[in-house]
Amino acid sequence: MTKKKLNIGLIGYGFMGRTHSNAYHRVKNFFDVPYEPVLQVVCGLVEAEAKAFAEQWGYKSHTTDWHKVVEDENIDVVEICVPNNLHAEIAIAAAKAGKAICCEKPLALNVSEAEEMVKVVEEAGVPNLVSFNYRRVPAVTLAKQLIDEGRLGKIFHYRANFLQDWTISAKVPQGGMATWRLDIKAAGSGVTGDLLAHCIDTAMWQNGPITDVCAMTETFIKERMHAETGKVEPVGIDDACTFLCHFDNGSLGNFESTRYARGHKALYTFEINGEKASIAWDLHDLHRLSYFDHSDESIVRGWRSIHVTDSDMPYMDKWWVPGLQIGYEHTFVHQVADFLQNLAEGKSTSPDFREALATQYVCDAVLTSAKNKKWETVKKA
Amino acid sequence: MTKKKLNIGLIGYGFMGRTHSNAYHRVKNFFDVPYEPVLQVVCGLVEAEAKAFAEQWGYKSHTTDWHKVVEDENIDVVEICVPNNLHAEIAIAAAKAGKAICCEKPLALNVSEAEEMVKVVEEAGVPNLVSFNYRRVPAVTLAKQLIDEGRLGKIFHYRANFLQDWTISAKVPQGGMATWRLDIKAAGSGVTGDLLAHCIDTAMWQNGPITDVCAMTETFIKERMHAETGKVEPVGIDDACTFLCHFDNGSLGNFESTRYARGHKALYTFEINGEKASIAWDLHDLHRLSYFDHSDESIVRGWRSIHVTDSDMPYMDKWWVPGLQIGYEHTFVHQVADFLQNLAEGKSTSPDFREALATQYVCDAVLTSAKNKKWETVKKA
Amino acid sequence: MTKKKLNIGLIGYGFMGRTHSNAYHRVKNFFDVPYEPVLQVVCGLVEAEAKAFAEQWGYKSHTTDWHKVVEDENIDVVEICVPNNLHAEIAIAAAKAGKAICCEKPLALNVSEAEEMVKVVEEAGVPNLVSFNYRRVPAVTLAKQLIDEGRLGKIFHYRANFLQDWTISAKVPQGGMATWRLDIKAAGSGVTGDLLAHCIDTAMWQNGPITDVCAMTETFIKERMHAETGKVEPVGIDDACTFLCHFDNGSLGNFESTRYARGHKALYTFEINGEKASIAWDLHDLHRLSYFDHSDESIVRGWRSIHVTDSDMPYMDKWWVPGLQIGYEHTFVHQVADFLQNLAEGKSTSPDFREALATQYVCDAVLTSAKNKKWETVKKA
Amino acid sequence: MTKKKLNIGLIGYGFMGRTHSNAYHRVKNFFDVPYEPVLQVVCGLVEAEAKAFAEQWGYKSHTTDWHKVVEDENIDVVEICVPNNLHAEIAIAAAKAGKAICCEKPLALNVSEAEEMVKVVEEAGVPNLVSFNYRRVPAVTLAKQLIDEGRLGKIFHYRANFLQDWTISAKVPQGGMATWRLDIKAAGSGVTGDLLAHCIDTAMWQNGPITDVCAMTETFIKERMHAETGKVEPVGIDDACTFLCHFDNGSLGNFESTRYARGHKALYTFEINGEKASIAWDLHDLHRLSYFDHSDESIVRGWRSIHVTDSDMPYMDKWWVPGLQIGYEHTFVHQVADFLQNLAEGKSTSPDFREALATQYVCDAVLTSAKNKKWETVKKA
Repeated sequence: MTKKKLNIGLIGYGFMGRTHSNAYHRVKNFFDVPYEPVLQVVCGLVEAEAKAFAEQWGYKSHTTDWHKVVEDENIDVVEICVPNNLHAEIAIAAAKAGKAICCEKPLALNVSEAEEMVKVVEEAGVPNLVSFNYRRVPAVTLAKQLIDEGRLGKIFHYRANFLQDWTISAKVPQGGMATWRLDIKAAGSGVTGDLLAHCIDTAMWQNGPITDVCAMTETFIKERMHAETGKVEPVGIDDACTFLCHFDNGSLGNFESTRYARGHKALYTFEINGEKASIAWDLHDLHRLSYFDHSDESIVRGWRSIHVTDSDMPYMDKWWVPGLQIGYEHTFVHQVADFLQNLAEGKSTSPDFREALATQYVCDAVLTSAKNKKWETVKKA
Repeated sequence: MTKKKLNIGLIGYGFMGRTHSNAYHRVKNFFDVPYEPVLQVVCGLVEAEAKAFAEQWGYKSHTTDWHKVVEDENIDVVEICVPNNLHAEIAIAAAKAGKAICCEKPLALNVSEAEEMVKVVEEAGVPNLVSFNYRRVPAVTLAKQLIDEGRLGKIFHYRANFLQDWTISAKVPQGGMATWRLDIKAAGSGVTGDLLAHCIDTAMWQNGPITDVCAMTETFIKERMHAETGKVEPVGIDDACTFLCHFDNGSLGNFESTRYARGHKALYTFEINGEKASIAWDLHDLHRLSYFDHSDESIVRGWRSIHVTDSDMPYMDKWWVPGLQIGYEHTFVHQVADFLQNLAEGKSTSPDFREALATQYVCDAVLTSAKNKKWETVKKA
Repeated sequence: MTKKKLNIGLIGYGFMGRTHSNAYHRVKNFFDVPYEPVLQVVCGLVEAEAKAFAEQWGYKSHTTDWHKVVEDENIDVVEICVPNNLHAEIAIAAAKAGKAICCEKPLALNVSEAEEMVKVVEEAGVPNLVSFNYRRVPAVTLAKQLIDEGRLGKIFHYRANFLQDWTISAKVPQGGMATWRLDIKAAGSGVTGDLLAHCIDTAMWQNGPITDVCAMTETFIKERMHAETGKVEPVGIDDACTFLCHFDNGSLGNFESTRYARGHKALYTFEINGEKASIAWDLHDLHRLSYFDHSDESIVRGWRSIHVTDSDMPYMDKWWVPGLQIGYEHTFVHQVADFLQNLAEGKSTSPDFREALATQYVCDAVLTSAKNKKWETVKKA
Repeated sequence: MTKKKLNIGLIGYGFMGRTHSNAYHRVKNFFDVPYEPVLQVVCGLVEAEAKAFAEQWGYKSHTTDWHKVVEDENIDVVEICVPNNLHAEIAIAAAKAGKAICCEKPLALNVSEAEEMVKVVEEAGVPNLVSFNYRRVPAVTLAKQLIDEGRLGKIFHYRANFLQDWTISAKVPQGGMATWRLDIKAAGSGVTGDLLAHCIDTAMWQNGPITDVCAMTETFIKERMHAETGKVEPVGIDDACTFLCHFDNGSLGNFESTRYARGHKALYTFEINGEKASIAWDLHDLHRLSYFDHSDESIVRGWRSIHVTDSDMPYMDKWWVPGLQIGYEHTFVHQVADFLQNLAEGKSTSPDFREALATQYVCDAVLTSAKNKKWETVKKA
């Protein structure tokens, strides 16, 4: 049975460009998807690099002009894997051209861009998705399932951290291809949009809306050389951000992110304490879910370390055998598998732009709170 | 060589009364202390219970009137192990009677009491100590030593939690002998004074003063039966408290405590991230210190799990052999060993009342911040 | 720059057929290999399944007759992913046809087959490789590197386990596609050839030859239904095998494998104790290496948990960013990357058939020892 | 209510003398025991040291002649805490004098001594106990309870290690007060009697008799200076010992001990795999029991880490509050508590001399097997 071809255009050949390309290559070997994805074109700033990327990843062509991708009648899906300051313009153009869109997170530089993006994709009626990939770590998906089944009971606490240490040295520059995440113009914010956005997306998916926040941010290193200009410039992003919040369900939230936590590379963790059970997870051992069930008999009650590799675990029937783990990149494969399935049904995939807007509202309230040093109410998406 | 006898009067025969009594019994077997402690008298509310306690722990006499302990000329040291609302009155009387004092934490019900207590002990010139015992877990003392040696470099983050789950059931009463910690009149506050006070004491000892705080508290169960009256009454304490803060050295703090974290009994944890190294610890495996040293060669760099049992570790030359751990109660033995040594030199032992007042100021600012929903500056001790 | 095409013929479309196919697909996206692998043909027992596999994995054709693969002039490399009883015949035919060969482990049903296979591939001069894939887990490769650098000093102990629990139920059949590993005719042995062979291969690679062994085996469930015949037949394989051994370097070995260790799915672990340092690893958290260095300063000495994800770790410069882990299947990608590089240089890749013969000698001695209940000397390869 | 006094005579003031003395001091504060133990006399080689020990631990007198302890009519219980070569003579004399006896492990230098000891204590009808203290770690006692309740089902595997690293240096002497454990004359054997005896005692208590063994021993450092003579002498003990065995219930055993496992101080571990559940424990985190229950629902099935501190855990109602752990020395307190209770009922306490003889038979078979390089049947006690 020959499947319908689905033509993919990728904009951005950096780290995320690689994860998305890999996902399209692999999905067909492991999932029964309704399309045959075809990597048509990759677009990037430097022609030679775009060409090399196309060769390595099997794109049929390359370009340095993203408009060509968006305007190409042959393209069905636009993948947006560029710095945050370009998301809005590209996504809006793609939506107006009728493309399905998969956009990297965070959705936009700021709330006004994000609101516009939601408006346009919804008017255009194009399927859309924002790549908050950590939802699709099997252990994280399992956590959501356990919560939805009511196993935790009433939730009291939600705690999440995303800790890194790669910018401690004052020699790390800002701006440019490798370090645009430190440049306020390209990134919009620091750890808030880059890392806390992930935590917030997962948290609201699992635990519902956040209603108000109180945040503290810090920029430990005040000036860094800009990679493009070579000049030392003030650093505009938040190096660290911690915030308190309330969820709509009455539970309390505590979120922290930093790039100055020596010893942690990408330590995204969350813990949820409910009346009946608790759950904890961390990205450094992403295939394990910790689970404490108070209904266990008391003398054998303890935190369970669930090795999420059995075939009855989310997505895991597609991979290997029990005990053998998958890794980071597989989250994108799961995302594409779900995206293609929904696409065949004309639907968006969660988290879509509107859900990502809700996360953007929280990020916005967090940054405002930190600036004004007071509690902020979160706008409803 | 016969040692000078030191006569001890204990007020309060609850959980803490047991830990203090045990410490006096054991210290002489393991430490070369300058006194022979003699357990003279125990005081408590119920005569039969005080008598039974005296028999079990070898006190020569018992009483139900604490004034008799304080006024007894024969008593050298008064140990205050009663609910928080009695600390000030007893401590002040003991100081005026010229007794050395070891007071359970938190120092007082509130700042004004605590200030008066500091004033009186300092005027009286009596050696004093507040029993923040966790400083003297060998792994915690080692952490302090590593920080003082400059191994962490500039500190960026201090994170501490104290998580319990024993009050989740609405059937737990407030007030009375077993549950006075839930009664605002006896305890002054909930987790803030009971648990966060420990975290704050350790944090300021390791990382210097806290300058300002922003807190959120919650009382999940609004009414509980009072154990003494049998009536359902409003709950006045904080069930949970989270706060952000700045330290004087520019680092950021994040503290959380709750009695609604299902699965955790007494999970006091801290983590300190410095430019050069990081440290983490938790009370559930109190003999381990986690340490990450960035100066390690990159291919063998990782978090080290230090099993703090060797004889070159703090206090550990007094106990058994490498690999064999000690437990919770030993922190009180260490405290008494230090207290007796200082006493012989006419000195107070850290943390003394003045240091505990600094912690009280932070607790006060935390509770005020939570009430007013804004940042509060911490008063300097 | 167009690369030379390399035509691959796969024999066997089971679990291992999938891992090998995946490796060939992915290697070009991540490694700069000297060939363009082309998946030409897959061979398997059931025509419809072979066809479906070919479609899913992009093989150009399929067949049910392995001779056609071996005899196809167009094929450069033969991948042998069938049950152990077919390895010898196919490998020998492939070698005689001048094909490069990648054979699944264990090399053969028994020593005499294995010796013949070595003889033929060496006479034919064809590049050969046996797929002991766990050598190429980055943490395992790093362990080898640390040993080779002399960091452990003189080795005293080597301990390895491979624990599973999937055959505890008496209802699991023997024989057939899914459970041929329980059929003595297809597998040659039980856990010894299936699981201990991995441990032995890694151990001798890291720690040198094993000289003598003393083993104990057990078959807990004596009869199982045969999946093909439907008849209950005696079980001929070893369900569990433990053995003691000496290494040529004077260290002691302790190896255990079982499929009756409730709670463990694929818990391959090893620990090596040297005079100066020790190393430990387990497959369930395969990206971590535990390392203890006695030369660390005593107060900060502890087992280090090395998260093997940085770009200076073996193979890890090819994948994502620090902190993000890869999984099981990547070991096969690494294997293929090394295989292709060596192929371009006309060389075999370690472990080649001769090295795998050494492992077969140990397995043989182990089984003989268990049968005879005495120590056995291991034949030298 | 005044309790009957029980007069204790301690022979040996080393490491074990301290643990036993501490246990007698503490037991009355925490357990409701039927006697008031009185530390009457301590006996040791060096008069000044015996005197200092008596002062530190509150013994009323001291002596250098153990006969005086045994012959003292005033003494009710003799505690034997001297090197192994003195156990038999003292225990036999004490039994003949009608004393209750608590003897350190291993029971004796060898089987013939041990058999004689059993004969004499049984003829004398004196209560007797051998101090295999690890049975009384609460987590280990809990493990026994879970097994006895049938929670594990049929047992397949028993695995135990006892790993240390304190004799790796060739400079460690043999003989003398501190290092008699390396002197074959004083110790009888090396790790087999010192460490494996613990593992064997626990194993047979939990899993029943061991029927036959096959062992390998090694002495890595062949000569060491003798601490008393100053001469370099051959080392007669086993530095390392590993053995395979069968239990009477059909399960397989794998035991290993060494003093050359760099990075481990006192890592006694065991794991038991049953049809329905598995259990694991290690001494370095002695308050935790790992438990895997296959009957858990599959998506939340995992190893549970049971923090054995709640008041419904063995012995734990006597100590502090949930979450707060006890340590190594408490095992001896538990032992004394049980011993005193049984004494009041005229009974021996498990493990008594006869049970310890069974362990001695296994140790003997292990050493014989290692010497003869063949399987040995274990004599039945």
